[in-house]
Amino acid sequence: MNTAYGTVTPTIARDVAAIVGAHHVVYAEPERLAPYGRDESVEADGGRPPELAVRPGSADEVQAIVRLAVTHRLPITPRGAGSGLSGGAIPIHGGIVIDLGRMNRILEIDTENLMVVVEPGVVTSEINEALRPHGLFYAGYPMSLETCCIGGNVAENAGGGKAIKYGVTGRYVMGLDVVAPSGERLCLGGKLVKDVTGLNLLQLMVGSEGTLGIITRVILKLLPLPRASADLLCLFRTPREAIAAVPRLMTRTGIIPTAIEFMDRTSLQASCRYLNESLPCADAGAMLLITVDGNDPERIVDDYERIGEACEAAGAVEIYVADNRTTSERLWRIRRNVAEAFKVFSPHQSLEDIVVPIAAIPAMVEAVERLSATYGVPIPCYGHAGDGNLHATPVMNPGWTLERWRETLPRLLTDLYRETARLGGRISGEHGIGCKRKAYLPLVLDAGTLAMTRAIKHALDPLNIMNPGKIVDPEG
Amino acid sequence: MNTAYGTVTPTIARDVAAIVGAHHVVYAEPERLAPYGRDESVEADGGRPPELAVRPGSADEVQAIVRLAVTHRLPITPRGAGSGLSGGAIPIHGGIVIDLGRMNRILEIDTENLMVVVEPGVVTSEINEALRPHGLFYAGYPMSLETCCIGGNVAENAGGGKAIKYGVTGRYVMGLDVVAPSGERLCLGGKLVKDVTGLNLLQLMVGSEGTLGIITRVILKLLPLPRASADLLCLFRTPREAIAAVPRLMTRTGIIPTAIEFMDRTSLQASCRYLNESLPCADAGAMLLITVDGNDPERIVDDYERIGEACEAAGAVEIYVADNRTTSERLWRIRRNVAEAFKVFSPHQSLEDIVVPIAAIPAMVEAVERLSATYGVPIPCYGHAGDGNLHATPVMNPGWTLERWRETLPRLLTDLYRETARLGGRISGEHGIGCKRKAYLPLVLDAGTLAMTRAIKHALDPLNIMNPGKIVDPEG
Repeated sequence: MNTAYGTVTPTIARDVAAIVGAHHVVYAEPERLAPYGRDESVEADGGRPPELAVRPGSADEVQAIVRLAVTHRLPITPRGAGSGLSGGAIPIHGGIVIDLGRMNRILEIDTENLMVVVEPGVVTSEINEALRPHGLFYAGYPMSLETCCIGGNVAENAGGGKAIKYGVTGRYVMGLDVVAPSGERLCLGGKLVKDVTGLNLLQLMVGSEGTLGIITRVILKLLPLPRASADLLCLFRTPREAIAAVPRLMTRTGIIPTAIEFMDRTSLQASCRYLNESLPCADAGAMLLITVDGNDPERIVDDYERIGEACEAAGAVEIYVADNRTTSERLWRIRRNVAEAFKVFSPHQSLEDIVVPIAAIPAMVEAVERLSATYGVPIPCYGHAGDGNLHATPVMNPGWTLERWRETLPRLLTDLYRETARLGGRISGEHGIGCKRKAYLPLVLDAGTLAMTRAIKHALDPLNIMNPGKIVDPEG
Repeated sequence: MNTAYGTVTPTIARDVAAIVGAHHVVYAEPERLAPYGRDESVEADGGRPPELAVRPGSADEVQAIVRLAVTHRLPITPRGAGSGLSGGAIPIHGGIVIDLGRMNRILEIDTENLMVVVEPGVVTSEINEALRPHGLFYAGYPMSLETCCIGGNVAENAGGGKAIKYGVTGRYVMGLDVVAPSGERLCLGGKLVKDVTGLNLLQLMVGSEGTLGIITRVILKLLPLPRASADLLCLFRTPREAIAAVPRLMTRTGIIPTAIEFMDRTSLQASCRYLNESLPCADAGAMLLITVDGNDPERIVDDYERIGEACEAAGAVEIYVADNRTTSERLWRIRRNVAEAFKVFSPHQSLEDIVVPIAAIPAMVEAVERLSATYGVPIPCYGHAGDGNLHATPVMNPGWTLERWRETLPRLLTDLYRETARLGGRISGEHGIGCKRKAYLPLVLDAGTLAMTRAIKHALDPLNIMNPGKIVDPEG
């Protein structure tokens, strides 16, 4: 821990309580503080609890807490649902966790401007539940949408399953209210389709993982809800065949599907077992789950037939069509729960998030297979193949000691990331850097980019109190 | 001029010539330097020439020039086609203009990853000419696409006529090579659909108007070329009726068109006169030019019929359909040339670029009409109504002296921008701040946002040599 930081004294704890009310403060209660020391990236026994956790109810309260932290030089870690996968919400330098879960209101559904205004603690899936009666939708679709918060989605620039057609969270973020590390309040953007009035601080804030400020309000752009959609479940003999089909099916048909998800046999079976679900295809070597959506049901049929033909030509052995919401949801539920299943069945694992150019995913899957053989470590794969985003997940060899696993993993990851960089890729497509991948950043970012990142962090947060220890350290 | 800057001595000019070759340097030749002192935002007699202009042929040469500028603390102003509308390319502190016009190669058309790699000096329309045989297109569509350069589009985050469906330039910028103000080289992003590996410096660079670095290579995302499109020309009695139809036609039909362009009578007539073009509708009070595109010709017909009905219900008096490329291009040519026409017929004018939430454009047009009456200044209007982006253009009252015009305009603009801010809008939707709107920025950005903007500029360019005097001054 940086010894220059202050500590949260009982007096400071009372000051925080005076801001938010004592029942929204947790202090000096190790058991109640423990959950604030973890996110979904760490094993259950891990974590690093804060000295104090606070649940503010408004931007005014967030601002007052940040000002207090500035005065006493206390580290602050903003937190949404704690569903992050890179340690972004872990207060590794102690200090104060600001839990935004109470700020969970949908403030406005603006059907004229096609925008929704929400607080950061709203659970992502609730936004679309509220929008459905208006015939509108928000296109962000992270796999954890039933538990994660929209503030966290913005802070991580969450990707998810529909990025190939709809893009990632940032495309829909039109406005943000932010409390800066200085304690100042900023209103960035607005209900505007275009805006070049000054530097693009809005998109700098998106994906900054809470290191440049705390989001207190979000304006999201909406789209008319597509009237029709369908899913194709395409089974292949091997992961290589399935992955090789991905760029081909797009270049051959000229269709950009809504989603192209990939699961290898291990991933599929783990998730089915976790959900107590069965599929006719559980023995397939790999599968693609492909979604198309639009306004014209006939066009959808035409699209999925052409995509199906392209998959057959690429070696698919069986293809199932799901054209009703129940069956589609059943398939997507299996896909959404792979990470959770791995956590349960293989507690010693590292969920990776590499991303490469779409045309390079076949080569990436081959590289993963080579690394798996070289290290003797199973590396099941799943992910958003249509985006080039693969969740390769090294899992501890059951015959190994925990010590051997912990000694091997960093070397394996270094090789994995080097292969990714060689193919023009990066080490995180959607989960972020956080503290989990910070040490590996120089493998993929050049010295100039790292220097610029540090310079911005230092300029905006000279005390280094805003989620310190994530992405980069300002001093290098 | 900031007296702390160095001046370009004959020795420095020789050093620059040694980098790029003497025939790519202009020095101590006032007549040849004069054009580098202007862009499209200033009247023909205005401008502020640099001390030296240089046309590098590679990123290495750009880097060497920037390093020289760092050593001697010389202001640098990057320049594309000089078609900017906010003074971004004007070297107001003298120094060196870096003209990127020689770096005009299309480096790669990557049909597998749906990306194109270009140098900054490529003329924007040439990109789509090169892509057409591949059945692909780049969706950026600034009105000056036949003359502007892609590097300038990225530096300004250019908007244009198709932003409502396709978004602005930034959505398609996947990678940038940049020479930073320090002289360091940065590779940002790549051929990646998703990437959260570090802070989003890529989108911070987009729209930074050359104040944070010089773009030397651009990777753009492509889309499959739509197989069909059509344009509707809808005539209305008054600008208010036309504008009021815009949000309504989208909320009633649930269709997001590719473009909804607006011209009032003055704009329409000026452009027709400039092009020596005639339209049956030249007496209409205002018109909307609405484009729909897609892959299914039948769907296009259905879309434009529904939009036409919605326009009729909103008071359109006549509607023409253009469903072939020749007629469409004829209509769009009229729209694209309004700004040019105003420059010719009304040399004393100020092309504005306000943007408001879509639902607020009727109120904005009313506010413009009120200001026109109050100040006795004609303010013809045209623009991208579907984006809320209006090019209201105050034009000198023919009965006035130039002195009275120059004294009145700043007060008129201040009122115009205050009205814009009151409606939730901003002062530039796509043209940028540059030096033209810098003084007005505090009318629409809060103190925290301005402070953060200054802090970033100062951190990345401590010598303030990279396009100084644009957007903000680092010292406030």
